[in-house]
Amino acid sequence: MILTVTLNPAVDVTYRVPALRAGDTHRVSAVTRQAGGKGVNVARVLHALGVPVVATGLAGAGFDLDGLPAEFVTTAAPARHTLVVTDGRDATGFWEPGGPVTAPEWSAFRDRYAALAAAASVVVLSGSLPAGLPERAYADLVDAARRAGADTILDTSGPALALGAAARPDVVKPNRTELADLGSVDPATAVVASHGPEGLHARTPAGAYHARPPHPVPGNPTGAGDACVAALARGLAAGTPWPDLLADAVALSAAAVGSPVAGGFDPDLYQRLRPAVTVEPRPWTVS
Amino acid sequence: MILTVTLNPAVDVTYRVPALRAGDTHRVSAVTRQAGGKGVNVARVLHALGVPVVATGLAGAGFDLDGLPAEFVTTAAPARHTLVVTDGRDATGFWEPGGPVTAPEWSAFRDRYAALAAAASVVVLSGSLPAGLPERAYADLVDAARRAGADTILDTSGPALALGAAARPDVVKPNRTELADLGSVDPATAVVASHGPEGLHARTPAGAYHARPPHPVPGNPTGAGDACVAALARGLAAGTPWPDLLADAVALSAAAVGSPVAGGFDPDLYQRLRPAVTVEPRPWTVS
Repeated sequence: MILTVTLNPAVDVTYRVPALRAGDTHRVSAVTRQAGGKGVNVARVLHALGVPVVATGLAGAGFDLDGLPAEFVTTAAPARHTLVVTDGRDATGFWEPGGPVTAPEWSAFRDRYAALAAAASVVVLSGSLPAGLPERAYADLVDAARRAGADTILDTSGPALALGAAARPDVVKPNRTELADLGSVDPATAVVASHGPEGLHARTPAGAYHARPPHPVPGNPTGAGDACVAALARGLAAGTPWPDLLADAVALSAAAVGSPVAGGFDPDLYQRLRPAVTVEPRPWTVS
Repeated sequence: MILTVTLNPAVDVTYRVPALRAGDTHRVSAVTRQAGGKGVNVARVLHALGVPVVATGLAGAGFDLDGLPAEFVTTAAPARHTLVVTDGRDATGFWEPGGPVTAPEWSAFRDRYAALAAAASVVVLSGSLPAGLPERAYADLVDAARRAGADTILDTSGPALALGAAARPDVVKPNRTELADLGSVDPATAVVASHGPEGLHARTPAGAYHARPPHPVPGNPTGAGDACVAALARGLAAGTPWPDLLADAVALSAAAVGSPVAGGFDPDLYQRLRPAVTVEPRPWTVS
């Protein structure tokens, strides 16, 4: 089983309005709502691939993951929302802050997490930390997974990434911007850096590589990083050799760009791209 | 007991952002959420005054009225939200559509309503209709309240007001704009028209009046109409003579303007204003 962890999930809401003007009142013509967050998106991709997965994390009332195997610890703070208002010209975003998470809630989560990690082959730790959690929260969870015998993949940013990476997870997956937050990383940790349409640059225990899609895929890049992490988790659990694993991650990422929703991917595009991804040795440089 | 009905309630959400700009992503610095809607606000005012009240209506998951006696029928559609984004300069509003309410949900509500109305002296019918309900929904509820022996107050707009008023509720409370929707009204129905800081113009079975506050009250007019209706409901239930009832409604409305939240009022201001409201006969003209 793969365990995904989302400590700061959100209900992703979209509003459609005719034209957004500050100071006006707008009748919303269409509303969508979906429980989301990076780890939840990873779990959706794995679930769609038929890989046994459980999504866990901390979430308030109003966070409903219909159909996805999930074991979240409920917080007193209500579920945060992320809202995107589209008017056909602009997309305007509003990010609610998460939390605050209380000490007893964090403690209850760690107990639940230890039990779930003991049944997992790979643990995926994704996204930002809500208010109330220590910045070294991910480092603690990497250590606990190691004690439970599970491999770990960390996908976050800022101090949470730097402090989490210091605990030597098996994989970190920064994007180009987040590489700057990362600093130096123990050679036992694979660094898989996503470079958008250029593919992945990776430094792994088996060598350093550049994995590249055959052509750019037009679409929505939201969720491509989560699809990449899903592929890495599946490959890590299966012991897939690194070059094959990176090729799979590039194909699944690109197939997610071809899907309109985060947590989705285009299965036909995935099958077509998979054999066309090239993986070549490339010396590792952070740039 | 006074029964308030809110068929299209909403969770009222406010976001505080530094500056709203279309196309940008905004970190929300403060969020408030409160279950609201016109009938809910009326019930909050009555509850604060110590008047026995029950709030009913139709609402989806996520609509929580903590502390207020309430018996809502749950709909499959989630609770709608109304969002106001403030940046210190502008208030920008987003109104989600309500519903759709299904036929079985409407039928379940009418059964619940009939039982509640039988225990009520006054029924307050407030606000817009969600998608899925017939435009004559309020007319049906006025008729059912009459059969149950309860008086009715109707506060809505557009076709729902015109069709509801045709069923001869005891009181309709249009604002100046809504008077145009109302058309001619049976003389058995009192018309209490709110004119903002000028107070109330009323045509009642006891005569026509102008009730006026001693001075304008600065503040937030949201919820003033609901406080007015709360006073009308309490007075109707108690058999208060119309001039006293109108004076009370003007004082409570003005005290709601002095409160920062809808459904609240300033009790000291209410006590000070009450004896200072003037009520004079005034020929009824719709203008």
